[in-house]
Amino acid sequence: MKKLFAEFFGTFWLVFGGCGSAVFAAGYPELGIGFAGVALAFGLTVLTMAYAVGHISGGHFNPAVSLGLWAGGKFEAKDLLGYIIAQLIGAIAAAGALFLILSGKSGFETIGGFASNGYDSLSPDGYSMTAALIAEFLLTAFFLLIILGSTNERAPKGFAPIAIGLGLTLIHLISIPITNTSVNPARSTSQALFAGGEYMGQLWLFWLAPIAGAIVAGFIHKALFDKEQIYK
Amino acid sequence: MKKLFAEFFGTFWLVFGGCGSAVFAAGYPELGIGFAGVALAFGLTVLTMAYAVGHISGGHFNPAVSLGLWAGGKFEAKDLLGYIIAQLIGAIAAAGALFLILSGKSGFETIGGFASNGYDSLSPDGYSMTAALIAEFLLTAFFLLIILGSTNERAPKGFAPIAIGLGLTLIHLISIPITNTSVNPARSTSQALFAGGEYMGQLWLFWLAPIAGAIVAGFIHKALFDKEQIYK
Amino acid sequence: MKKLFAEFFGTFWLVFGGCGSAVFAAGYPELGIGFAGVALAFGLTVLTMAYAVGHISGGHFNPAVSLGLWAGGKFEAKDLLGYIIAQLIGAIAAAGALFLILSGKSGFETIGGFASNGYDSLSPDGYSMTAALIAEFLLTAFFLLIILGSTNERAPKGFAPIAIGLGLTLIHLISIPITNTSVNPARSTSQALFAGGEYMGQLWLFWLAPIAGAIVAGFIHKALFDKEQIYK
Amino acid sequence: MKKLFAEFFGTFWLVFGGCGSAVFAAGYPELGIGFAGVALAFGLTVLTMAYAVGHISGGHFNPAVSLGLWAGGKFEAKDLLGYIIAQLIGAIAAAGALFLILSGKSGFETIGGFASNGYDSLSPDGYSMTAALIAEFLLTAFFLLIILGSTNERAPKGFAPIAIGLGLTLIHLISIPITNTSVNPARSTSQALFAGGEYMGQLWLFWLAPIAGAIVAGFIHKALFDKEQIYK
Repeated sequence: MKKLFAEFFGTFWLVFGGCGSAVFAAGYPELGIGFAGVALAFGLTVLTMAYAVGHISGGHFNPAVSLGLWAGGKFEAKDLLGYIIAQLIGAIAAAGALFLILSGKSGFETIGGFASNGYDSLSPDGYSMTAALIAEFLLTAFFLLIILGSTNERAPKGFAPIAIGLGLTLIHLISIPITNTSVNPARSTSQALFAGGEYMGQLWLFWLAPIAGAIVAGFIHKALFDKEQIYK
Repeated sequence: MKKLFAEFFGTFWLVFGGCGSAVFAAGYPELGIGFAGVALAFGLTVLTMAYAVGHISGGHFNPAVSLGLWAGGKFEAKDLLGYIIAQLIGAIAAAGALFLILSGKSGFETIGGFASNGYDSLSPDGYSMTAALIAEFLLTAFFLLIILGSTNERAPKGFAPIAIGLGLTLIHLISIPITNTSVNPARSTSQALFAGGEYMGQLWLFWLAPIAGAIVAGFIHKALFDKEQIYK
Repeated sequence: MKKLFAEFFGTFWLVFGGCGSAVFAAGYPELGIGFAGVALAFGLTVLTMAYAVGHISGGHFNPAVSLGLWAGGKFEAKDLLGYIIAQLIGAIAAAGALFLILSGKSGFETIGGFASNGYDSLSPDGYSMTAALIAEFLLTAFFLLIILGSTNERAPKGFAPIAIGLGLTLIHLISIPITNTSVNPARSTSQALFAGGEYMGQLWLFWLAPIAGAIVAGFIHKALFDKEQIYK
Repeated sequence: MKKLFAEFFGTFWLVFGGCGSAVFAAGYPELGIGFAGVALAFGLTVLTMAYAVGHISGGHFNPAVSLGLWAGGKFEAKDLLGYIIAQLIGAIAAAGALFLILSGKSGFETIGGFASNGYDSLSPDGYSMTAALIAEFLLTAFFLLIILGSTNERAPKGFAPIAIGLGLTLIHLISIPITNTSVNPARSTSQALFAGGEYMGQLWLFWLAPIAGAIVAGFIHKALFDKEQIYK
């Protein structure tokens, strides 16, 4: 149960901090933080909560991560459903909090696309569905390689939250213009629920591609790099 | 007594570095550091001084942090007053130093709002009092969850200043447009004292919301995550 | 064989993340990440994969690094060819993936120079061949001094990926305007193959200068700083 | 002798990387790294070389640091002269390398102020001599408090280069507009020698203020925070 609370708080923070920085601060005239600031914010949500509650739940904060760790042999199937539900509730609660704060802005009328993910006409820079599929698949796959590798018993102890958090920053530095960067179905769902319409219609891709990438990476890591799985 | 000196120097540095970067460097034409640079500066004040004097005083540098640690069962009530006074003196001394330097700028006439916090018409992007209350409450609560979690005996040793410092950077990446980001009553007080008038009239919120958030987070951590408190 | 897979994935990620951030996100209007974001991305590719697979292959991801480590007495000559081939394949595969995604952008016509390196008229800010030679030589030499020093047995354990990754960030902060920053022949080759023509004609410099710098630094480290080599 | 080579390379890298990023990359149109990028570059020069050669020479790279460590009881007087000379030679050699590269830029005519420090009309934002004195004194004093505190035996092991390097980043985030940030007489000297004239006339301040701040901080640390000095 404590684990689920940890996942709830962690995923709340990921969406509140990552999407919040995008919504509140990215486009502020002259002084705004831009895509680079949003990328840093997303990464730091994971870095900070992984140090804070990683020793409790493992610090997934993302259904694709839970599934990729399962595929890599590091997480039990029976815990998947609980984790994913806690992550979704945390993400949606955070989106609600963002909405509450944003609606208190002078002159507020609509949230527009919120910090939703999208492709084609909903891609920040007009990337196609195929481009979005490739990007989200590859980026989530490498995210899982980083997670599985840096938490491996042979990797230096204690540094994994830095590698994983800054890995998420890197993923955003690459791909915000392509899909607004998901690699996390809970994050995508929370935003699409508030943005509605067209964004809901594209949500499938941000479940499919990240989960497929994560599972493939889990199998690759187990087959190639995970000593324990191979030799025991 | 050494602890109080450590808190004095740490809070001086937090205000001198964080508010100083905002006042001197954020809006410099073309090359200025913007909100992202200020966010980094605030976080690095805490990261650096937590490594420098954290082993002496614990490295709070913030009355809300001291109160949240007390609520979380990690700090004794009898030390609260001394810490908070040392923090306030450090913050105000730093604001004085900033004023001294700023008044040596060619063409200087007034400090305007300094780096004060505010809501409504004093919010950088026009956020209401309610939005400010929610934001400061939530952000300080998560700040304390990060502090209490990353300094927990089960968390990796030595990394807490990175998690806590970069956590403060993250908080600023999200919320400078909302309230100019406080989460620290000493920081807010030091600036309002120099900016005066309207800013003093809004100072109550930047004591109330951060302290409430910190104390709630302290209780949450004690109830849910802190093994030692629960099982002993 | 596992080592070669690790080098393949690591170099793929270096090119996909570093060059990808440049191609997709650097110049996005208003919100783009600029040279500083690209610098951060390059560094984080190495930081993340060094934590993920550094314990498998050593985490070179760069022919100049493999040669410099050989010169420094830390890598065996018989492994050089395999490593360099795996690095080249990884880099070129990543360039292919970038091309695939980029060609899915609305209105795409040509990749132009991709993220290629160059001098004279192909230098971002018009630097001469001599300036490019000096810069790439010196930067790669210091990159190797950082790698050899931070992985030395007397350096703090576990921190080398941070020093090395952020060292690559620093190198890009200095020199993107000069040559678009190589210090890595595999990275340069992968981009020139797609950009073609003039870029292929300048590729020699981005093999010669980084490798020369790396080898000189390897000898300097062995002669001056590497206790083990000197006293045993 | 090895120590002096380490100080030579470290200070070369500090000036080549820090001042180089300012000269080559800060003001590049649209994509330039700005003051925040330069601040990051300066800090990363120290972070990287402190991990690389800190275990050899202590990683000072700065006459004010050597003097502050002496005042703090952590460095022997007899080594001061050698260190300071090695630092000056490294800094000046780096300035020469920067000049060589910069003169290979198409349309190059003059280096102007290079990356020199200054006050009054040579301050980037027009700050007076008094403001410059206060800023350089305070910033160097806190730099030494960070160095002395984070390398203290009671501080977490291995993290000092992160605290010290990012501390130098923070110092630049605050004060580039004031004096172009020195806190390091070797760095200032190397630039003024090439910029000449007026800059040479202001160089005294960038020896006086940093050294005074460093020495005062050394005494403060010894008196207040350094257990070993007090109780033994």
